[in-house]
Amino acid sequence: MEIDKNKINVIGFDADDTLWVNETYFRETEEKFASLLDGFETKNKIDQELFKMEIKNLELYGYGIKGFMLSMIEAALELSNNTVSQATLTEILGLGKRMISHPVELLDGVVEVLEKLNGKYRLIVMTKGDLLDQERKIERSGLSKYFHHVEVLSDKKEGNYLNLLENLEVAASEFLMIGNSLKSDVLPLINIGAQAVHVPFHTTWQHEEVTVKEKEIKYLKINKLTDILKYL
Amino acid sequence: MEIDKNKINVIGFDADDTLWVNETYFRETEEKFASLLDGFETKNKIDQELFKMEIKNLELYGYGIKGFMLSMIEAALELSNNTVSQATLTEILGLGKRMISHPVELLDGVVEVLEKLNGKYRLIVMTKGDLLDQERKIERSGLSKYFHHVEVLSDKKEGNYLNLLENLEVAASEFLMIGNSLKSDVLPLINIGAQAVHVPFHTTWQHEEVTVKEKEIKYLKINKLTDILKYL
Repeated sequence: MEIDKNKINVIGFDADDTLWVNETYFRETEEKFASLLDGFETKNKIDQELFKMEIKNLELYGYGIKGFMLSMIEAALELSNNTVSQATLTEILGLGKRMISHPVELLDGVVEVLEKLNGKYRLIVMTKGDLLDQERKIERSGLSKYFHHVEVLSDKKEGNYLNLLENLEVAASEFLMIGNSLKSDVLPLINIGAQAVHVPFHTTWQHEEVTVKEKEIKYLKINKLTDILKYL
Repeated sequence: MEIDKNKINVIGFDADDTLWVNETYFRETEEKFASLLDGFETKNKIDQELFKMEIKNLELYGYGIKGFMLSMIEAALELSNNTVSQATLTEILGLGKRMISHPVELLDGVVEVLEKLNGKYRLIVMTKGDLLDQERKIERSGLSKYFHHVEVLSDKKEGNYLNLLENLEVAASEFLMIGNSLKSDVLPLINIGAQAVHVPFHTTWQHEEVTVKEKEIKYLKINKLTDILKYL
């Protein structure tokens, strides 16, 4: 599928796993979490219970590292029947703090793509997660000069995009979203009449997986971010 | 001091302790936290250590309940030299979750003021803290119909306001901010050439206190929110 470039005035970029590495650090931290709780349950069970805890708490905490930290603490207490050591809980807090402080690793081609599109389109970062965290990553990334501004959304459903585009006074038809999550960066946009491009990242959080039926929607998929330059 | 109402087109309302009760729940939770740790230290020392932990973590976690929960957990572990019971830590998580789920209690006069100003000015909620939390409170409050939209800021310093007003294409001179925090809702606005009104709430977090020198800046202070109607 092609995109209709003549209509596009504003481009939204997802940030985590589109501009820079993110999911990888969650996977690494989950590995370390499972090692810390080794002995209480099998690794597989620990992974499952942590995921279940995250989903249970998602409505309350939303996306981001702080909610993940709280879910790790709660899962450790629950999995161990309140016998996990206090020292281990302190280590879990340390795992989360290191995630927050992690340097930003840009993905391949990001600077090239932003250099070329900057000026031709109004570029906006549109990310979900923790506000402070995302602002900090944009600042550390050195990419803020390419973007008109940064929008952090509490979720990326159709309604969130509709509200945001209305506030920005941008019509859906002139908007293109680029991101790694079919569920968050592509399908809701197609459904509201905007355009969207999928750039998969090698790792996807289970919660972001979509059903086969949702995959039937037509959208442009590219293998690497720089491929977008062929279409714009 | 008066305000110059002819210049004003856009009004920003702080939310916590301006539109609804907030700080009171933090104080109540701190009381419960101190009771849970009774025996490890004096109440006074527990209060102090929790506050110190919050300030130490503020740069990492930002404002909001999730960061406060993580600081309570860390302070409990540290204060008790890692001897606090796992059951107590579970209770601390519960205290935080109850704060997140707390019903919204509107402050006196809020609906009356918003009813009267809506239509005459563009009204925007400008709050700091956790994005999801603040969006949820606006929704539960029933006040969203009065507001053009909601802006959640990671902090409320001059630079944050300048960026935001620029994105909104609002000149500082046509903007009035109303809020309970001299430090966050009044002084930075006066410093960037906007107008601001201070409506004190009976409880102020230590971190929001300002120095005597900062208090010398001239601004309009009103005793209750409905008093603003005399000026607009």
